Amino acid sequence: MNKFGFTRTQNDAFLKKIILFLFFMSLNVTAQIDKIEPPFWYAGMHNPDLQIMFYGKDIAKYQVTVSNETKIINVKRTENPNYIFVTIDTRKTAATDVFFSFSTNNKLQFTQKYSIKKRREQSAQRKSFDASDMMYLVMPDRFANGDKNNDSNNATVEKFNRELPGGRHGGDIQGIINNLDYIASLGATAIWSTPLCEDNDAAYSYHTYAQSDVYKIDPRYGTNEDYVRLSSEMHKKNLKLIMDYVTNHWGIEHWMMKDLPTKDWIHQFDNFTQTNHKRSTISDINASKIDTQICLDGWFVASMPDLNQSNTLVLNYLKQNAIWWIEYANLDGFRVDTYNYSDPKGIADWTKAITDEYPNFNIVGEIWMHSQAQMAYWQKDSKIGAIQNYNSHLPTVMDFTLLDAIATVFNEDDGSWDKGMVKAYDNFSNDFLYPNPNNLLVFAENHDTNRINEVYNSDFDKYKMTMALLATVRGIPQLYYGSEIGMRGDKNKGDADIRQDFPGGWEGDQNNAFTPEGRTEGQNQYFDFTAQLFNWRKTNEAVHFGKMTHYIPENNVYVYFRYTQNKTVMVLINNNKEAQNMKTNRFQENIKNYKSGKDILTNNDYDLSNEIAVASKSVLILELQ
Amino acid sequence: MNKFGFTRTQNDAFLKKIILFLFFMSLNVTAQIDKIEPPFWYAGMHNPDLQIMFYGKDIAKYQVTVSNETKIINVKRTENPNYIFVTIDTRKTAATDVFFSFSTNNKLQFTQKYSIKKRREQSAQRKSFDASDMMYLVMPDRFANGDKNNDSNNATVEKFNRELPGGRHGGDIQGIINNLDYIASLGATAIWSTPLCEDNDAAYSYHTYAQSDVYKIDPRYGTNEDYVRLSSEMHKKNLKLIMDYVTNHWGIEHWMMKDLPTKDWIHQFDNFTQTNHKRSTISDINASKIDTQICLDGWFVASMPDLNQSNTLVLNYLKQNAIWWIEYANLDGFRVDTYNYSDPKGIADWTKAITDEYPNFNIVGEIWMHSQAQMAYWQKDSKIGAIQNYNSHLPTVMDFTLLDAIATVFNEDDGSWDKGMVKAYDNFSNDFLYPNPNNLLVFAENHDTNRINEVYNSDFDKYKMTMALLATVRGIPQLYYGSEIGMRGDKNKGDADIRQDFPGGWEGDQNNAFTPEGRTEGQNQYFDFTAQLFNWRKTNEAVHFGKMTHYIPENNVYVYFRYTQNKTVMVLINNNKEAQNMKTNRFQENIKNYKSGKDILTNNDYDLSNEIAVASKSVLILELQ
Repeated sequence: MNKFGFTRTQNDAFLKKIILFLFFMSLNVTAQIDKIEPPFWYAGMHNPDLQIMFYGKDIAKYQVTVSNETKIINVKRTENPNYIFVTIDTRKTAATDVFFSFSTNNKLQFTQKYSIKKRREQSAQRKSFDASDMMYLVMPDRFANGDKNNDSNNATVEKFNRELPGGRHGGDIQGIINNLDYIASLGATAIWSTPLCEDNDAAYSYHTYAQSDVYKIDPRYGTNEDYVRLSSEMHKKNLKLIMDYVTNHWGIEHWMMKDLPTKDWIHQFDNFTQTNHKRSTISDINASKIDTQICLDGWFVASMPDLNQSNTLVLNYLKQNAIWWIEYANLDGFRVDTYNYSDPKGIADWTKAITDEYPNFNIVGEIWMHSQAQMAYWQKDSKIGAIQNYNSHLPTVMDFTLLDAIATVFNEDDGSWDKGMVKAYDNFSNDFLYPNPNNLLVFAENHDTNRINEVYNSDFDKYKMTMALLATVRGIPQLYYGSEIGMRGDKNKGDADIRQDFPGGWEGDQNNAFTPEGRTEGQNQYFDFTAQLFNWRKTNEAVHFGKMTHYIPENNVYVYFRYTQNKTVMVLINNNKEAQNMKTNRFQENIKNYKSGKDILTNNDYDLSNEIAVASKSVLILELQ
Repeated sequence: MNKFGFTRTQNDAFLKKIILFLFFMSLNVTAQIDKIEPPFWYAGMHNPDLQIMFYGKDIAKYQVTVSNETKIINVKRTENPNYIFVTIDTRKTAATDVFFSFSTNNKLQFTQKYSIKKRREQSAQRKSFDASDMMYLVMPDRFANGDKNNDSNNATVEKFNRELPGGRHGGDIQGIINNLDYIASLGATAIWSTPLCEDNDAAYSYHTYAQSDVYKIDPRYGTNEDYVRLSSEMHKKNLKLIMDYVTNHWGIEHWMMKDLPTKDWIHQFDNFTQTNHKRSTISDINASKIDTQICLDGWFVASMPDLNQSNTLVLNYLKQNAIWWIEYANLDGFRVDTYNYSDPKGIADWTKAITDEYPNFNIVGEIWMHSQAQMAYWQKDSKIGAIQNYNSHLPTVMDFTLLDAIATVFNEDDGSWDKGMVKAYDNFSNDFLYPNPNNLLVFAENHDTNRINEVYNSDFDKYKMTMALLATVRGIPQLYYGSEIGMRGDKNKGDADIRQDFPGGWEGDQNNAFTPEGRTEGQNQYFDFTAQLFNWRKTNEAVHFGKMTHYIPENNVYVYFRYTQNKTVMVLINNNKEAQNMKTNRFQENIKNYKSGKDILTNNDYDLSNEIAVASKSVLILELQ
């Protein structure tokens, strides 16, 4: 030990660091590098390989080495000299700063610091969302404007214009943070926000699916730090944050589009070629090659270049970007946009990479198909996918066939053969096709569909039946902001109509639906019912994870049970225009020795010994006792 | 050798036979037995076990032994003393007569001869129908009255009454035999006749799905020997005979119903209980037990007691009856009625027993479902069935989802998104769900649906598109008698309307559609087109067994190819109200180096180098060259 209390080895290391530091100070450390992505990383990841992209004028001409225990596995140069992809092995890298040295002809030209950070405790084992949750979907530009100062800025082209239906309305992260208690009071336990990363399109950027920088929150929503703050504020309130991730495409204004690393970073065509949207081509043994190619490689719209996930550099970039956000913002789940428009192998690899890092992490993919077999194909460990040796590894899919049913079922009063409640019944009859029916997102609407109150013309009884169904069937219920106060929106009038501003989210809004006092009587009626229903759901294990038994609808009445060993919930949805008396003997295998059922909405008791009267167009949710 | 030229052993055997013969002559050989089923059997079957049912007053009181090399494996008595089920092992039984001895207290009371016959050469290896065939469906009572003498008889209740829409009209086996050349001239290679065994119901017996004796042809159709003659006459003309087999139920007038062998021979309920027809309950993990039970065990209609295939005696009876008909009438295939209304395990065993006996034998089951996954579940070696460890062993299913599409597609002129030809395309997009998509029966109608010319209001262009589709897609096309001459029939008016008499089948018919001269101009138009199309199909291997590649319909035009290494057929169906010019470059992966296509209907040549003009509401079937 010397007088500083250092051992000889420590002393040597200390001296070495000082020398290195002085040496590095003598060099121009940043001039040649414009971007580094990921901007930093974490120590101790399951996958120790990290592909760092350095971007800068003629960066590819340098030899790259790295300090410390870290090893370079691979240095990949592309046809564009402004990129270099350096893959390092972080297996032995502690949470520390790593220094990359860039040399020419063995002469060091400059160095670049790169931070490897410490992960949160139990980061890999983080919990995620499941059927015990209720997911509230917000479109941040249209939810609440919590910070007027970020409505416009110099860095992004499109400016605040609330008069324009498809313009920027100023909603932001602070607006969500301000209203977390409102969301929680509804019984929601998770928030899925549509994307928040920068979208620098000149118009329609508010939907933010055409992102221009996937490592940066759009300044009109806030900062990266604001997003982290959203996450931590939510966690304090036991709310889970689900990020909307887009693997299929970026925006045409993405900075990389002006100087692509490789020609095949995106799918390019001689003329603009739009996807044909026929995702069935992917599994179709009769499909022509050209149709399948256009489905997968064609662009979603002209402003969204289609990423090539079969290019390993791209795929690694997307994997790391996703993992970076989970670590950085402490996320609880992903919703993945246009999941099966991506290269099938690539998206499966991407999904597996994430769930390998986070074994409990749930990801719900947008699989917008109209048959259960086609949707089931895409769920993790699907036997239908296995017909073609395909496994997407995607834990959760969206129940779009239920949406198809919900879009008409409560308008069908007669219920004969394939009409009315049979449509809902038929949907659940096909659950055996799914490896995990409880990992289905159940919903009546989202930001791409008609609003449910538009579908049912603000008929409150039909809203109640719809919500009761979502709250009690298997799967993870999802609500769309504003419908809980009766908001309407007609997809045929354009997307803006289904994405209107939440009343009360803007200073000066006459109607503030965030508070009981601010809501109209009608809004309170919708809200109170919804909050009662989903707050009840919050603690009911039978509805979360219980088995489901359903009965073929008769006279347009759908009866089903959710139950565990100790708890049974009986649901009766009478979609008939007439009141119905339901004889209970048919349901004996589920009623067993229970004597009565308490309606969770009215607290009324129903005797189970003979028959149960259900009013027309109404629902009973009975806790059996 | 003795003076008769016998060896000593032969001599002994001869003497033994004489002694046995004299001994048997001294007994009453038939008095106690009313029925023996199967009435005889065949030597050298794959399954050597034969369950013979003896029926007679108090037959169960006897001990039973058997002569020759045959061994009794099992003697089963039931709660009804009038039945005894004797299972013998025929492994060593030659084609010969076997004698059963019935004794009481070790004293022989009587004997019963039972014939074991010689099988036809190559019986087990018989060929069957496949996608190279075209199946013509006839309802014999309504096709042609070839023998007026059998129109009514003393043994069956319902008498001839052609005035009654649902009555017996007199059509018979001889009527089919008389018109085999007509059927063959249409390009058909197989005939599926609705059931021909005795149906002694007092009314509506003409459909013959409520059979009263499954070992006997209904005398109003002819005799068992007539049915054998039909088969042999058909084989002379290279036509295949497909029997309509009913495993699910018998008729209420079946002789056994008056004196059931066991209470559980059929499914019995306190009150008449009809099936709920929800076959999805079978695979539905959410289904209630009671719904599934009523689906499977409920009766199809009150006149059709539901057989209990989970009773081994019943199941063996049904297996043997089916095999008996194949051997006896030299059948080429089965169509199985209401296939998945039977006990799932039982019907799978039944199907496997038959295909174990006849490895090439094709069986098409009526799986009337509305999703490909639900239908695919029931095809042999289904990966979807395998989700529940189920394998029906059924080689062929009926393409009912294609029927659903055909019932509307040609009335939809716009073809946007999910309308028009996309409906047909979508059906074939799901072929990957089937273990064997070429073993699908494709059809536009049958005896239970609207007739296609009713659906399309006798629009000849739509008829042509429909038939062209059936003739050229994968699978086995099936036509329904009479539609080829433009017959109409509306299911909403009742079954009789879709099962009208074929004109010319009855003496005195003014209109004889069996001959070109007898047909009206309109009938000839329909017939000539149909015959041209299916006679062309008869020899086109690409359409029989070629791969299919299809293209997403654009502007309501569906283009697909069928091809082998040496032969390519291109089909263009323009369902648009406007003529369409189809640029050929999109189809390059199939057109390859072919230069032109000859339309098989007009013999016109089409140049493939640029575009192909297709008239509105029309089809081109091009053989590429």
